Amino acid sequence: MKIGILNGGGDVQPLNAVISSIVKSGVHDGHEFIGFEKGWEGVLSPMLYRTLDQKAVRGISHVGGTILGTVNKGRFAAKVGAGDKNKIDDEILNQAKANLEKVGVEALIVIGGDGTLSGALQLADKGVNIVGVPKTIDNDLKSTDKTFGFSTAVDIATEALDRTHTTATSHDRVIFVEVMGRHAGWIALNSGLAGGADMILLPEMPFDYKKIVEFLRMRKETGYRSSVVVVAEGATSKEGFFVTLEPAESTQKQEIKLGGISNTIIHNIEKMAPGEFELRNTVLGHVQRGGTPNSEDRILAKQYGVAAMEAAVNGDYGKMVSIRDGKIVLVPIAEAVAQLKLVTPDCLEVHTAKRIGVFFGS
Amino acid sequence: MKIGILNGGGDVQPLNAVISSIVKSGVHDGHEFIGFEKGWEGVLSPMLYRTLDQKAVRGISHVGGTILGTVNKGRFAAKVGAGDKNKIDDEILNQAKANLEKVGVEALIVIGGDGTLSGALQLADKGVNIVGVPKTIDNDLKSTDKTFGFSTAVDIATEALDRTHTTATSHDRVIFVEVMGRHAGWIALNSGLAGGADMILLPEMPFDYKKIVEFLRMRKETGYRSSVVVVAEGATSKEGFFVTLEPAESTQKQEIKLGGISNTIIHNIEKMAPGEFELRNTVLGHVQRGGTPNSEDRILAKQYGVAAMEAAVNGDYGKMVSIRDGKIVLVPIAEAVAQLKLVTPDCLEVHTAKRIGVFFGS
Amino acid sequence: MKIGILNGGGDVQPLNAVISSIVKSGVHDGHEFIGFEKGWEGVLSPMLYRTLDQKAVRGISHVGGTILGTVNKGRFAAKVGAGDKNKIDDEILNQAKANLEKVGVEALIVIGGDGTLSGALQLADKGVNIVGVPKTIDNDLKSTDKTFGFSTAVDIATEALDRTHTTATSHDRVIFVEVMGRHAGWIALNSGLAGGADMILLPEMPFDYKKIVEFLRMRKETGYRSSVVVVAEGATSKEGFFVTLEPAESTQKQEIKLGGISNTIIHNIEKMAPGEFELRNTVLGHVQRGGTPNSEDRILAKQYGVAAMEAAVNGDYGKMVSIRDGKIVLVPIAEAVAQLKLVTPDCLEVHTAKRIGVFFGS
Amino acid sequence: MKIGILNGGGDVQPLNAVISSIVKSGVHDGHEFIGFEKGWEGVLSPMLYRTLDQKAVRGISHVGGTILGTVNKGRFAAKVGAGDKNKIDDEILNQAKANLEKVGVEALIVIGGDGTLSGALQLADKGVNIVGVPKTIDNDLKSTDKTFGFSTAVDIATEALDRTHTTATSHDRVIFVEVMGRHAGWIALNSGLAGGADMILLPEMPFDYKKIVEFLRMRKETGYRSSVVVVAEGATSKEGFFVTLEPAESTQKQEIKLGGISNTIIHNIEKMAPGEFELRNTVLGHVQRGGTPNSEDRILAKQYGVAAMEAAVNGDYGKMVSIRDGKIVLVPIAEAVAQLKLVTPDCLEVHTAKRIGVFFGS
Repeated sequence: MKIGILNGGGDVQPLNAVISSIVKSGVHDGHEFIGFEKGWEGVLSPMLYRTLDQKAVRGISHVGGTILGTVNKGRFAAKVGAGDKNKIDDEILNQAKANLEKVGVEALIVIGGDGTLSGALQLADKGVNIVGVPKTIDNDLKSTDKTFGFSTAVDIATEALDRTHTTATSHDRVIFVEVMGRHAGWIALNSGLAGGADMILLPEMPFDYKKIVEFLRMRKETGYRSSVVVVAEGATSKEGFFVTLEPAESTQKQEIKLGGISNTIIHNIEKMAPGEFELRNTVLGHVQRGGTPNSEDRILAKQYGVAAMEAAVNGDYGKMVSIRDGKIVLVPIAEAVAQLKLVTPDCLEVHTAKRIGVFFGS
Repeated sequence: MKIGILNGGGDVQPLNAVISSIVKSGVHDGHEFIGFEKGWEGVLSPMLYRTLDQKAVRGISHVGGTILGTVNKGRFAAKVGAGDKNKIDDEILNQAKANLEKVGVEALIVIGGDGTLSGALQLADKGVNIVGVPKTIDNDLKSTDKTFGFSTAVDIATEALDRTHTTATSHDRVIFVEVMGRHAGWIALNSGLAGGADMILLPEMPFDYKKIVEFLRMRKETGYRSSVVVVAEGATSKEGFFVTLEPAESTQKQEIKLGGISNTIIHNIEKMAPGEFELRNTVLGHVQRGGTPNSEDRILAKQYGVAAMEAAVNGDYGKMVSIRDGKIVLVPIAEAVAQLKLVTPDCLEVHTAKRIGVFFGS
Repeated sequence: MKIGILNGGGDVQPLNAVISSIVKSGVHDGHEFIGFEKGWEGVLSPMLYRTLDQKAVRGISHVGGTILGTVNKGRFAAKVGAGDKNKIDDEILNQAKANLEKVGVEALIVIGGDGTLSGALQLADKGVNIVGVPKTIDNDLKSTDKTFGFSTAVDIATEALDRTHTTATSHDRVIFVEVMGRHAGWIALNSGLAGGADMILLPEMPFDYKKIVEFLRMRKETGYRSSVVVVAEGATSKEGFFVTLEPAESTQKQEIKLGGISNTIIHNIEKMAPGEFELRNTVLGHVQRGGTPNSEDRILAKQYGVAAMEAAVNGDYGKMVSIRDGKIVLVPIAEAVAQLKLVTPDCLEVHTAKRIGVFFGS
Repeated sequence: MKIGILNGGGDVQPLNAVISSIVKSGVHDGHEFIGFEKGWEGVLSPMLYRTLDQKAVRGISHVGGTILGTVNKGRFAAKVGAGDKNKIDDEILNQAKANLEKVGVEALIVIGGDGTLSGALQLADKGVNIVGVPKTIDNDLKSTDKTFGFSTAVDIATEALDRTHTTATSHDRVIFVEVMGRHAGWIALNSGLAGGADMILLPEMPFDYKKIVEFLRMRKETGYRSSVVVVAEGATSKEGFFVTLEPAESTQKQEIKLGGISNTIIHNIEKMAPGEFELRNTVLGHVQRGGTPNSEDRILAKQYGVAAMEAAVNGDYGKMVSIRDGKIVLVPIAEAVAQLKLVTPDCLEVHTAKRIGVFFGS
C-alpha cells in the first residue's frame, strides 16, 4: 500500500518521531511511504514530495522539528469572502486530490492541529482516504488524553521558571515569564505548578489588576519581596488590555498590546503602583517549540505514529488516532476537532495550585 | 489538627515536593505538622522528629531526596520466624502507637512502597489514623495511573541511552544499559522506547539467549553493526542466569550473577559467540533515584501531597490517595498494595515498540 | 580574624559557590565571617548582615543567585552633580567605614563588577581593607582569564540556539535570538559559535543593514531558507538604530528601540525587504543569569572564593583575585577595573567562526 | 588541494564538530576532503572512505560520536615481538602510504590520542604529510591548554554527583562514583570539585585505606553520615588493590579487581569496618563519552578543526595543532605526544578542593 504523510501548522518537537514510527512500522509489511513537504503546499502543483524509506527516517526520532518542513495553511487557507471561514477553494481541493492520485497515494496521514485537520476533512469529503494525527502543543483536545510536544514545552517553561526564581530572589524582583497558550492555559498552568510560580495567569481565568497589585503587596508585607509569575500569551484581564496613558497623552483608556501581554501587564502595574515593585518580564517564544523532545513526548509520538499507520492499513478513514487511558481509540475527525479541552477552575491542577498558595489573578 | 508525615523505603526525587505540598496546603487552615525522620525509626523510641512549618519547607520542592531521611524498614521489619513474612513485632507497633499519641499526632500520612505501607496497615489495625501515599519509582501500582519518581527515572535512563547511541555507533559496539526494575519493567520499557533501544529485556518477558544472539547476528548482516540494549535489573532468561564455565573449571551450568544482570548477559553472549560482537555494559544505579525531579513528577507529587492532607483532615483513614484519569481517588490501602501493574506483552508500549522493530529477547 | 563578605550589582549563577568557599576555606582556621545583605546597603545604617558559619553555607554552592541578596549601587551611587561620575558621597563612605568597624570587620571581600568595585576602591581610600573578586557575566576583564557566570550563560544561550534551529528550519524562518552583552559580545560570540548561528552581531563590530539583507538573500538563493542569528543586546548598526517610519508618520529616520535591539532589527529588515523573509525574534533575558551554575563556573567560583579568603588573611588589600594560566594572581583593583577585554575581529573565536561561514554583519 | 581526514581510538563527543569545521573552512577555497572510516583501517586495503562536502557535514556538529566510525589501532597495532612497543609493521605502513597516494590525498589530518598519533608519526617518516589534532577526553596533554570532550565528560560526571548527593543524604550512605581517567585524574578532580564530592581519589595521588576509613569515621562523628566520593578508574591505593580474603579462603592478600576500582574499594572498606558504613558504588562508564557535546567543547572542536585545515593548506606537516592562551600554536607531534600533563598536589584545583575540606585519600 502507498501511504502519504503530511504535517501542517506550527512545528512541535516530536514531529520527526511520528514520521519515523509511521515509516518504521509499515515498511516491514511492504508498505511504501511518500512524505509531502511544506504542509498542504506539498500536494499542490508543483508537488513537493519524496519517498520515505527506512534509511530516510534513521536517527531522526529525537531530533526536533520536521524533516518535511511545514507552513501554515498556504493555499489551503479559506477562500476570502466564501462565507464559511474555513472553506477552501474547490479548485485547490480538486488539484490536491488529483495530485495524490497521480502519485498513487492510497491513504494520507495528516498530522496537524484544527486548521490542518479542517483542510483534511474537506479533502476527505472529496473522497481522499484520510487518517488524522492530532498536533497541538497546547494539549487542548478533548478527544485525546495527551498530545505530543506539550510535555517538552512544559519542561522548557519550567526550567525557565527555575532559573527565574534565583534571580528574582536575589534582586527582590517580580518577574513575569510569558509562555505559549493563546486559548488554553495548560502550559502556563503545568509549568507554573512544577516551577513553583507564585501567580499563574490563564486565558480561561481572566485576571483583575487590582487584585494582582493587592496580592503582590500582601506578599511583600509578609516578607516575600520577590515573586515569579507565569503568564499564558492569551491571558486577559477582566477590563481588557488597557494601558492607562498619562492625562497629557490621552483622556481615555486604550487597548494596546506592548510586545506581549506580560509587557502590558508590568506596564499597567507600574502605573497603578509606581515604584512599589521592581518588575521585569521575559517572553520565552520560539524556544518552546524546538529542540530535542523529552522522553514522554517521544513515546507519545511513536504511539501515535504506529497507530496512524495501522489505521491507514485497516481502512479506518476519516478518523483521528487518539490515546485514552493508555489505549488507542479512533474518533471521527469532525468530532475530534470540534471539542476543546480548556482549563477549568475545578480541575486537579488548579485545585492543587490554589491549595499550596498559588494566586490565579482574581 | 496535628498531622504526622513519614516516608520509608528507597528515596525518589520528588519526596520533598510531596512533603512541602502537604505542609503548604494545611498551614493556612491552622493545621500543624510533624515530620518523622528515618522512616519508621522516627516514631520509635527515642523518637526522631521535628515541626514542619511554612519556613521549614520553603524552596525544597525541586530538591531531590527527602529532608526527613529514610531507611528501609529498620525495626519495622518483620519479626523473624513469625510465620507471616510481613508481621511486625507487636511490641514495636504498640511503642509506635504510644509515641504518636504522646506527641499528639491525630493522623499520620505515610509515604511509601508496599513494605512501608504494609507496616502502616498494621499500625492502622492498632487504631492509628493512617493516610497512605504510594511511592514506587517503578510505577507498578494498579490502583493509580502514575507514581512520582518514575518519569524522572525514565528521563535519566533515556539520556543515558542517547549518550550510549553515539558511542555504540562510532565503535560498532553492542552496549547494554542496565536500569532499575526488579519486578516491573516499566522504566526499561519506556526509556527503551524513548531512547531508541534496539532490544529491551524485562522481568515480565523472559528472554532466550539463542534468540538474542540470532537477533544481533541478523542486525549485523543487515548493516547495523551497533546495537543499544536496555535491560531491567530483574530481567531473566528462560534458562536462568547460568554462566557456562569452562570445562576445566566446572562440568555444569552455574547460576551466578556477575555484578548485575547485564554483566552476566554479555558474559554469556561472549561464550556463545566468541569474538563476534564487541560487548559492553553500564549499570546506571543510584543516579536514577536522585537529583532534581522533572516537571511531571513535581506536579504529581504536589497533587498527591495536597490530596493526602485533605484526606487526613476529612478523616479518610486506612486509605491511599490515587490518581485516575486526572482525578483523585481514595482506595483502601490493603487493596492498593495487593495489586501490581506489570508489563503485559499486549500493552500499548510493547506493541508500539515491536511494530517499529524493537526486539524483546524471545 | 573577622572577615566581611559583600556582593553587589546583577546576580550571576555561581555567587553562592563563591560565598560558600570563602567560608569553608576559612572556618577551620578559626576565622569568622559576616555576610552583608543587599550589596552596599548592608554596610550602611541600619546595617543588614548575618554571621556565616559552616552550616549557613551548606548545600548552597550549586544553587543560583546569592543568599545575601543584591542591589545595584543603592546609596553607593555617585553623588549627582559631583563632577566625577563615580564619586560617592563622602558621608556615605564614612558611615560604611564606621559601621564595618563597629561590627569588627578586619577585611571586606567585595564581589562585584566595575560599579561595585569602584565603590570598594573609594572605601579602600578611607582605610578599609578590601579584597576584590571580579563578577561579570560578560567575561570582559583583561586582568583575568575567565569570570564565573559566563560559561553558564553561554550554555543557556547555546541551548536556546539549538532549540531555535529546529523550528527555524521547519518553517524556513530567520530567527534572531537576543542575548546579554551591552559592551562586550563574548556571550553572543561563544554561543553563536557553539550553537551554529549563521550570523553573529556584536557591540564591537557594528553591522550594516544592507549587507545583512544581502547575506540573507544569498543564503536563500543557495538553498538555505532558514537562518539563526544571535545578537548581543548592545549590538549596533553603523547607521544607528533608526526605524524607518512610513512617510505618513514621519519624514525622517528616528532612533527608536522597540523592546530590544533584535526587535528593531527585524522591523528594519522587513522595511527594507518587505515579505522576503519570515522574521522572528526572541529576547532571552533574565533566564541567562539564573539557575544552577554549570561545572566550569562552580570550579571557577570556588577557586576565586578560596583565593579571596587567602588574600584577606595574608593582608593583600586593595587587590583583586584573578586567574591567569590556571594560577591565582593578585592585581591592584584600580588597574583591574580599568581594562576591558573586548572582542576583536582577529581573536580566535571570530576567526574560527568566519572560516566556517558565519557572517558578522558587515 | 585534496585533504584526508581520519580519527582513531576511543570516541569523544565533539569529533563530528572537528570534522565538520575542517570541511566547512576548506570547501569555500576549493579544497576537497576525503573521510577515512574506522580509523587506520580506512587507509588500508580494502580502503574505506567517502567524499566529505558541505552537505555531508551539515547538521552534525552537535551530534556526538563520529560519522567516520573509529577503531582502536586495528592493523596499525604494534607488531608483536618487534622490540619497540609502538613499532608498526613496515608493510602495513607502506600499504597505507600507497593507498593514500592512489586516492590523491596530499595531506592527512589525523585526530587521535597518543596511540593514533604515534602511528601517524611513523607514516610521516615514510613521507606522508600529516597534521595532528589531539584527542584525549582526559585533558592530559602538556602541549595544549584544553582538549575537546573533557569539559562535556566533566559535566556528565558532575550531574551524576549532583544526583548522587540527594540519595546519599536521604539514606546516610557513602556512595562512590567511578569516572574515567586511567592515568590522569582531571575528570575526577574537576567533577569532584564542581559536584561537591567529599573525597576525590586520583591515579596521581595514591590513597591509604586506613586514612579513608578514619576520614569517614570523622565525618560520621561530626554529623555527616553521608559522603559522596568520586574515584578515577585508575586510582590506586598505596598498598595495591588487595582484597583481603577470609582465612578459610586464603592466607594472603590478593590483588583482585572486582569490576571496577570503586567496587574493590567498597569491598575493602567493608572488610576493615564491617557494618559501619552503608557503602554503594556506581560506574559511569560509556555515557561519559557519548551524546551532545557542551558549548565549550563545540567551540574548542571548531577551533581545532579550522586550525588543522589551515595547517594542512600551509604545509605545516608533522605538527599538531594546539591552543595556548587562546591562540593556536603548532607543535611537533613527536614532542607533543611525549609530554603528559598529570594532576600535581599543588595545582590550583587540588589546592582549592583541599581548602574547602575535600579529602584526597591520604
